[in-house]
Amino acid sequence: MASDPDDRDFIQSIERGFAVLLAFDEERVNPTLAELATATGLSRPAVRRILLTLQRLGYVRSTGSRWSLTPRVLSIGQHYSASHAMIEIAQPHLLELSAKTGESASLAALDGRDAAYVARVPVRRIMSINVSIGTRIPAYATSMGRVLLAWAPDVVVDEVIAAGLPALTKHTVTDADAFRAVLRQVRSDGWSIVAEELEIGLLSVSAPVRDRTGEVVAALASSTSVGRSSVEALRSDVVPLLLDAAERISADLGHRSTARRDGFY
Amino acid sequence: MASDPDDRDFIQSIERGFAVLLAFDEERVNPTLAELATATGLSRPAVRRILLTLQRLGYVRSTGSRWSLTPRVLSIGQHYSASHAMIEIAQPHLLELSAKTGESASLAALDGRDAAYVARVPVRRIMSINVSIGTRIPAYATSMGRVLLAWAPDVVVDEVIAAGLPALTKHTVTDADAFRAVLRQVRSDGWSIVAEELEIGLLSVSAPVRDRTGEVVAALASSTSVGRSSVEALRSDVVPLLLDAAERISADLGHRSTARRDGFY
Repeated sequence: MASDPDDRDFIQSIERGFAVLLAFDEERVNPTLAELATATGLSRPAVRRILLTLQRLGYVRSTGSRWSLTPRVLSIGQHYSASHAMIEIAQPHLLELSAKTGESASLAALDGRDAAYVARVPVRRIMSINVSIGTRIPAYATSMGRVLLAWAPDVVVDEVIAAGLPALTKHTVTDADAFRAVLRQVRSDGWSIVAEELEIGLLSVSAPVRDRTGEVVAALASSTSVGRSSVEALRSDVVPLLLDAAERISADLGHRSTARRDGFY
Repeated sequence: MASDPDDRDFIQSIERGFAVLLAFDEERVNPTLAELATATGLSRPAVRRILLTLQRLGYVRSTGSRWSLTPRVLSIGQHYSASHAMIEIAQPHLLELSAKTGESASLAALDGRDAAYVARVPVRRIMSINVSIGTRIPAYATSMGRVLLAWAPDVVVDEVIAAGLPALTKHTVTDADAFRAVLRQVRSDGWSIVAEELEIGLLSVSAPVRDRTGEVVAALASSTSVGRSSVEALRSDVVPLLLDAAERISADLGHRSTARRDGFY
């Protein structure tokens, strides 16, 4: 056995606590203890102890034999938002971009091999997936993800490719070399348009947001659908608005843009 | 000692895991291990084990000797949103209300003695507090909180009063009897206006959102400021829009409104 069983126990309890918390989802809104045991693969006594702990901490509550999450669960994510000034700084720019384009505006950060929404101004429901803050979408098949990957360390891109680039639609770029070429193009253009690679009908365009060190910390996106716009319209009409908004957010984060050097500095 | 030390350890590990996660905030964006130990009151070896666990789970990362939250933290709250159809159902109505009023629209649920924002369309920064999803504000001094308390079980109202009604501004209702009278008025009116009781300059008006069982599950609010509006203007102009939006959300949640009985059913 391991030399430090306490350490092992500690890790496992936290891991299991999150496993139970994350087992509440669209399909298990009000699960029973037995359903949570099945979903997590944990024993019923283990799930029971975890639920009672989470209940005492205020994250879950029970009604009869069914359990549900409380809004306190949202406070965990709120700590991410509070500790990332970028999200609040970006909000007015997202609203302005959304107002100018008439389309949803989103901000995402890289989370492993996914792009995670960290801020969003929805306009209408254009995606069949549930897009709320914290939603993760595969980076390789989305404009936000490609922007984040285009400026990410090589090791991250290698990991994404190693994990595979499965076709999500008939348009998804699935070849590793083609994918690397796409990322080079994104770096060269300074923005990414992805058409129907994540989902048929969905178009999105993204640009990088940089912090004061020049590092790309987020991708700003405008999303629309085939019936409402086109790749050509995005390129000619939306890209300039998007680049301007991304540059304003970057400037608010302290990034000194070379393009603005003469104007502002 | 307790007869079931395993159970005790289990509880404590999860509790401590959340304590470390929640110690990241505006004041500790990139804390060191030592700073987290001070903030949580835990030993450095304990904090170190927890951080390594959270890192393996993808919730924190380290840069040199400093730690930060990853966007994966947001996915925890996303499970609340995904399991509460209300939030997605409410979004278009929040946007419409915000467009009609030109002001921020918010949806909150009761979390213990607080109102917790579960959805929000920000317009401009009218509050000095950081209002993002998951933010909690004291229920007793806010229109959303008063709507939630007005229809809450007596035991919840008793708890709020027992915890005290401290003055947050010179306008805050702090007397228990006066507070109970305010809640009765909210029930009778069907909405709540709170002027400068949480923060000087802030005005807000809220109405209840009901699910199909008729239970009040959330409060819908429109927020503005003294320089931009007045209690009289809220009452005459915003209350009708707000009641309409709250009723539409309730209807989408399956609530059969008595007011609409003749029209729709």
